[in-house]
Order: sequence, then structure tokens, then C-alpha cells
Amino acid sequence: MEFLTGVNRKDTLEISDLSAGEYLGKSVKVNGAVHTIRDMGTVAFIILRKREGLLQCVFEEGVTEFDLGALKEASTIEAEGELCSQEKAPNGIEVRLKKIKVLSEPTEAMPIPIAKWKMTASLETLLDLRPISMRNIRERAKFKLQEGIIRGFRDFMYKEGFTEIRTPKIAAKGAEGGSNLFRLDYFNKKAVLSQSPQFYKQMLVGVFDRVYEAAPVFRAEKHNTPRHLNEYTSLDFEMGYIDSFEDIMAMETAALQYIMALLEKEYAKELKLLNVSLPRTDKIPTVRFDEAKKQVSEKYNRKIKNPYDLEPEEEVLIGRYYKEEYDSDFVFVTHYPSKKRPFYAMDDPADPTFTLSFDLLFRGMEITTGGQRIHDYQMLLEKIAARNMETEGMDCYLSAFKHGMPPHGGLGIGLERLTMKLLGESNVRETTMFPRDLSRLEP
Amino acid sequence: MEFLTGVNRKDTLEISDLSAGEYLGKSVKVNGAVHTIRDMGTVAFIILRKREGLLQCVFEEGVTEFDLGALKEASTIEAEGELCSQEKAPNGIEVRLKKIKVLSEPTEAMPIPIAKWKMTASLETLLDLRPISMRNIRERAKFKLQEGIIRGFRDFMYKEGFTEIRTPKIAAKGAEGGSNLFRLDYFNKKAVLSQSPQFYKQMLVGVFDRVYEAAPVFRAEKHNTPRHLNEYTSLDFEMGYIDSFEDIMAMETAALQYIMALLEKEYAKELKLLNVSLPRTDKIPTVRFDEAKKQVSEKYNRKIKNPYDLEPEEEVLIGRYYKEEYDSDFVFVTHYPSKKRPFYAMDDPADPTFTLSFDLLFRGMEITTGGQRIHDYQMLLEKIAARNMETEGMDCYLSAFKHGMPPHGGLGIGLERLTMKLLGESNVRETTMFPRDLSRLEP
Repeated sequence: MEFLTGVNRKDTLEISDLSAGEYLGKSVKVNGAVHTIRDMGTVAFIILRKREGLLQCVFEEGVTEFDLGALKEASTIEAEGELCSQEKAPNGIEVRLKKIKVLSEPTEAMPIPIAKWKMTASLETLLDLRPISMRNIRERAKFKLQEGIIRGFRDFMYKEGFTEIRTPKIAAKGAEGGSNLFRLDYFNKKAVLSQSPQFYKQMLVGVFDRVYEAAPVFRAEKHNTPRHLNEYTSLDFEMGYIDSFEDIMAMETAALQYIMALLEKEYAKELKLLNVSLPRTDKIPTVRFDEAKKQVSEKYNRKIKNPYDLEPEEEVLIGRYYKEEYDSDFVFVTHYPSKKRPFYAMDDPADPTFTLSFDLLFRGMEITTGGQRIHDYQMLLEKIAARNMETEGMDCYLSAFKHGMPPHGGLGIGLERLTMKLLGESNVRETTMFPRDLSRLEP
Repeated sequence: MEFLTGVNRKDTLEISDLSAGEYLGKSVKVNGAVHTIRDMGTVAFIILRKREGLLQCVFEEGVTEFDLGALKEASTIEAEGELCSQEKAPNGIEVRLKKIKVLSEPTEAMPIPIAKWKMTASLETLLDLRPISMRNIRERAKFKLQEGIIRGFRDFMYKEGFTEIRTPKIAAKGAEGGSNLFRLDYFNKKAVLSQSPQFYKQMLVGVFDRVYEAAPVFRAEKHNTPRHLNEYTSLDFEMGYIDSFEDIMAMETAALQYIMALLEKEYAKELKLLNVSLPRTDKIPTVRFDEAKKQVSEKYNRKIKNPYDLEPEEEVLIGRYYKEEYDSDFVFVTHYPSKKRPFYAMDDPADPTFTLSFDLLFRGMEITTGGQRIHDYQMLLEKIAARNMETEGMDCYLSAFKHGMPPHGGLGIGLERLTMKLLGESNVRETTMFPRDLSRLEP
């Protein structure tokens, strides 16, 4: 009988092993994809792409037992040679090759030059060729940073006593009304794709006090803008026993601090590669919605067209204002008008035309919407009635309130937007592996 | 200007704070939901449900400044009192109440007795009332353990150099053929819900070498069994530069070891509450598909009906065999027949009627399917042709192979099934927060 007992450790080494020092001057075995070959005559540099970065290998005529002419870019290989210091090479090391074994070969030349430092192809082309264009190490690094963000979010949530939940993506009815829903046939029943875990996370506050989910959401919005996606990743949390909606903003501030610290510590290589400097998160200013509108109207001499909504241009100006006046890349805009928020938003008792809610702007773009929710059953029914909404399909949601819910609130963060603004990209598709929009369903 | 600077720390204490010792004999403030009230006359026990467990509070006539008659079960409260040792109470502590402040009240009595140790209602009722029935602390604990499993999986993946990926759930075509797909209208284009991240994770092996995703998948299967769901969470990984498919089984073994160690360390309370003993994972036996069929046929005197497939009853018997013969709750069954595996499975060069693939059985049920994949473009085309399949919609997938892919393989683990077998449940719906099946679309 054979048994499996744990990871099969290999004699092939990764870049972190190689650059640790102990293997210098020794014979090492490595594998990777041939990223580029620079043939200098009797010597050639074979750059391997490995998961931790690039590794320079040196082919020497007569020393390396292999026919260089037979080696293709984009092949994957296993190689052996001596590990040497080399200042000019990535990570200060190179492998002087003795042997090469080809593991696999491409059948066609690359459609785009992935080994270039910056990809010059159009975004459309890069997206059409995503599985290939992401082999560029800068493209790849973007998504490594995105991993760092979601990982930091989760780790922080665990630390603060939030329970991870899994809410269904196929649902009978949407959480925030009937528009913008993808509809599907579910065994001859009408179903929709969930546009938000809102109802579920609120119900589960009654179970776990604090819950979070990081999962896809679906919105059938017909916007075709650089900031909209029809499927995106929402980092959601909801917390009970709050004293005010400020508790939620405070929790998000701490989450951002944690995420930035994690990126700095564990993703320094990618930050450097992409020349990203992390924003300050030690203190984030807050301003009322109406006040923010007035501020930018005065400072930038811009007329207020609609007192009940923020236009994207106003968001940009608010971002600019708080950068200029307070050197902050973030600003919480609070007390959004009630009629612009969903029925479950808690109105401000001081003035019920406004809500105890907020958006977080990052470099002039909304990346979070959150706020305190109504927790009283009667108040919820009254608000639903005042909006002439039906409670059909909401029985289970309402039952949680009927049977007691603590004061609570929460938020949703758009992962791709947060990544986009962190990286200074101008289109959210740049930081989405496989974006879905009005015209894109593939790859 | 007001600023947010981090978490608003409260003066209310959690159970871990209270049971640390330093607050004994002191006045403390707590909050929670009133789980039960046991009125003994001049004294009453008010059990609070908090996120870390239950907390006993003692109401004393004339001492506690509150009218006990006005306190309802399922209210949420904030309370103050003296923290005392109490052997018989949960965590050995109780709070002798001075003050109670009601934060919220229910409007109706509970539809089921959630404070009972075991819920006796039918599964259907528990599911219909999920947001309420999960307030039972044993029901809640199941999902805490499920969190531990997915968390352990992710942490292990990071440790082993896997990159977290996000693949789209709305897709143009399914990865494993055209049946069992939920179809939807995507802005007047035909789309489907992804039944597996298979194509994407393989393509991304060409980018990151090792990738993983823990996300929902959707299968329009018309099975209505205790082990099938139409939406479930798949823990997927895919790794490049493997020497054989044994590397994948070895990685899964190590992942399970890591998960069990995390559960033991961080979820001991839930394990105890549910009386779960963790399975051994130090060594997991492997057996060939044909050999396993023979073994159970001989030992349990059962005729082999179909030599190319495992029936659920056979899986149960194989599980029993390896428990009896090797005291193992797990067994890898390898070399599944080629015609039962998807086109991308690598056939065994020694006998191409079988594949270099495996299932992992846990206590007699399949919880994982995995194997080595074809990485050579020509071989892939030949296999597609041999099966009379169309390559339509596969251009992007195939292009990854055209441009070079390392030898690779991977697997998918069904999270809800793994949780189910770990907890000794007999229906996968028991360990799914909001199951979706042929007849259930709500809540």
C-alpha cells in the first residue's frame, strides 16, 4: 500500500531559496518558462519566468550541454548549473547552465511581446489576450497586489471577530430593488443573480454579531464607463452593537491601515515593480455630503446642479480638495440624502432627509458605500410603506427583525476599484483579471 | 475637521476578555442578545448570546435596576454588573447585573426554540427559518468550523506559493461541456454560469505557476440527493511543474493536515461543542480505481456492475474497507477510466483507457476530483478530435497551450461536502448556509 504523507518537496529551487545565499557557488536545479533569450554569440542569457520573478541563466557554448538553436522562447524547462552572484541580474544572481531539459514547447510565436517592460498594446488587445498578456511581469504584479488587498481584508476581519459567511449568488429576488438584475431560469422558476449580499449579511448579524464576505456580485447596469463592471468582487462586512455609523468608518479605516501594512511587508517587490507608493491611512477626514458639495463649489467655482447627488466630476473635485487641504488620498463623505439610499438605510433623526450613511472616496472615486441600517421591525415596515414598496419576497429578511436584531451597519468595498486607484490606473478593467462589461463576455 | 484613525474601541467586553481573569470582581459592561431567561423567583438567569459564546448574567430583585417582567427573550441589551467566578456557568464566569439597557426588542415570539441544545425541527423547517435557526449555538458552530476549513485552505495555499485568482462566474461557454449549465441572457448575448474555474485556472498556471480560487460554482444538475447542491463552494487549485499527479495528491494531503491543525488550534471550542473528532491525515492511502472495485467486491461480496464507474454505494464500501484495513478516514482512488473524465485529463501512457487522475474519498464520499492535465497543444487537439468535440468558444483556452504551458494538474474540493463529512452529517444542506437545490431558491 502506498501512502501520501505531505508535500512532495522537490530539488528544484525557487528564487527566494536561491537568493538566500546558502546555494552560492553550488550546483542548483531550477525550472521555469523561457521569458526571453538574448543571444550574444558564444554566450546567451536565458531569462526564466518563475512565480517569484525573473531568473537569469547563462548559456555558454561548449559548457552548456544543449543546442541553443533548439530552445524556443515560451518553452518551459528544467535546468541545472552553478549559482553565481551577478550584480546586474534580477535579485543579484544568475545560474551558469550545465544542462537543460525541455518540459514543453509552444507551437506558435507570441502574439504580443510579453517580455517588454511596458506593454504598449491597447487595453482591448491586452484583455482579448489576457492569459498571454498577463505573463508580462508588470501585468502579473497588479494581480499579486490585488491578492494582497483581499488577503489583508480577510485577515483583519478574522482579527476583529468577524465570521466569514457564504451567501447564495442565485436568489429569488434582489436586495436593492428590481432593476439592474441579471435574470435566469432556475428549474422553471424565475431567479436572479445576487447584486449584493445585503439582506443575508444583515440577517446573519443576528447570528454572529459580525460577519464578512468577499465574493462576486452581479449588476446588469448598462453603463459602459472606465469605472463600471457588470461582475465584480465586493468586500462586504456588517457589524452589530454599533453606537453610531462612525464605528463602521472607524473599522474601515483600520482595515485599510492593516491592508497597507500587509502590502508593505509582503508585497514590497510588486510595489517596487509597479512604482506604487502607498497612501496615508493614519487619519481619514470626514465631511458631510452637503458641506463637501459647498466646499468644492466655492473653491473650484463650480455650480451645484443637483443638491441630492454627487456627480463623478464632483467626486474628483472632493478628492482634489482633501488632497490639497489635508494631504489625504481618502475622504469619507457622510449623510447622503435619504432618497438616494436604499430603504434599509437609517435616516438621521436630526434631519430625516439625510441618512446615517457614507461613501469613501479614494483619489476622487467612490470605492465604498456603507452606513447604519434600520434594526427596528416597525421602522423598517414604515419606511417600506413610505416608499410604496412591496414586501413580497422579503419574508425571511423581515423575520430576522421581527425576532430581534441589534443596532448594526456595514459597508461594501469594490475590490477592483480599490486596486485601480491604488495602482493609479484609469480603467477598472486594468485591475480585473477577466472583466465583464456590456460588450465583453470573453475570455 | 474630524478624522477617523482606527477601530473605535468600546468599553463593552467580549467573552475572551471576561474569561482572561483580570476583570474578576470588577464592574464590567457587556452586550448581547437575550438567548434565554430562567426566572427562579427573586433571582433570574439571563443568558446572553455573544459572538464568542454564551454569557450567564444574574438578575437579582432589588439589586438590578430593571423590571424583569419588561425584558423579552431575543431582545438585545447592554448591561453592567460585577464579574464573578461561577463554576456551573459557561466559561466559569457570570455577571451579577446592576443595570440593563434595552437596545432592541422583538415583536413576535420565536417560531422555534433556538435555545435548546439540539434543534428537533425537520431540516426543511430549519432551512426555511435559517436566519433564526442559526441562532442556535450548535447550528452556528457548524459554520464557524466551515470558516476554519476555508481559512486553513487559503493560508496553506499562500504558504506554498499559490496566487489567489478571481475567475468570472458569468461565462460564454462551460468548461466541461454543454450540459448542466444555468443559462442567462447577458445583454442579448447567451451566457452561462460557470460550473468550474477549470479553463481559467489552467490558463493562469501559465502566468503564476501555482494558482487557487475558493469561490461559488453552479451546476444545473437535476439530482435531488443528500449530497448534491446546485450552487456550492469549490476550493480549487492548479499547479505547474509537477512530476506526476502524485504531487497534487501530496499537496492536498498537506492542505488537509494544515486545515486540521488550524481547527484544533483555533476552533477547539466549536469542535467540543459539536463533539467532532478530527480525522487522521498523517498518511492517506492510495489505491487504483480497478483495484479498489475488486477489493470491495471480494471483501463485501458485491458484484461489479459497471467496471467504468463508481456507484455511491461502492464509494461507501471503499471508505469502509480503508477504515477497517488501514484505520484511515480518507483514501485516494486513482486512475479513473478515461471515458469518465473530461477531455483535458491526461491519459496514462501505460494504458490510455485510464487517466492520471484521482478522487479523494472521505468517510465513503467523494469530496475531491483532480488529476494531471494535458499540457501539450497537439495532444489536446487530438483528444478533442477523438471525442468529436467542437473547439468553438475555446480559442482563448487553447491559445495558452499554443504559447507554452508547463506540465500541470490540480483539483477541486467541495467545501460543503468536506464540512458535512467532518461533522458526521448525513445531508450536505446541514452544512450549507443557504442551500440551492431543485426545489429550494429561498431564503
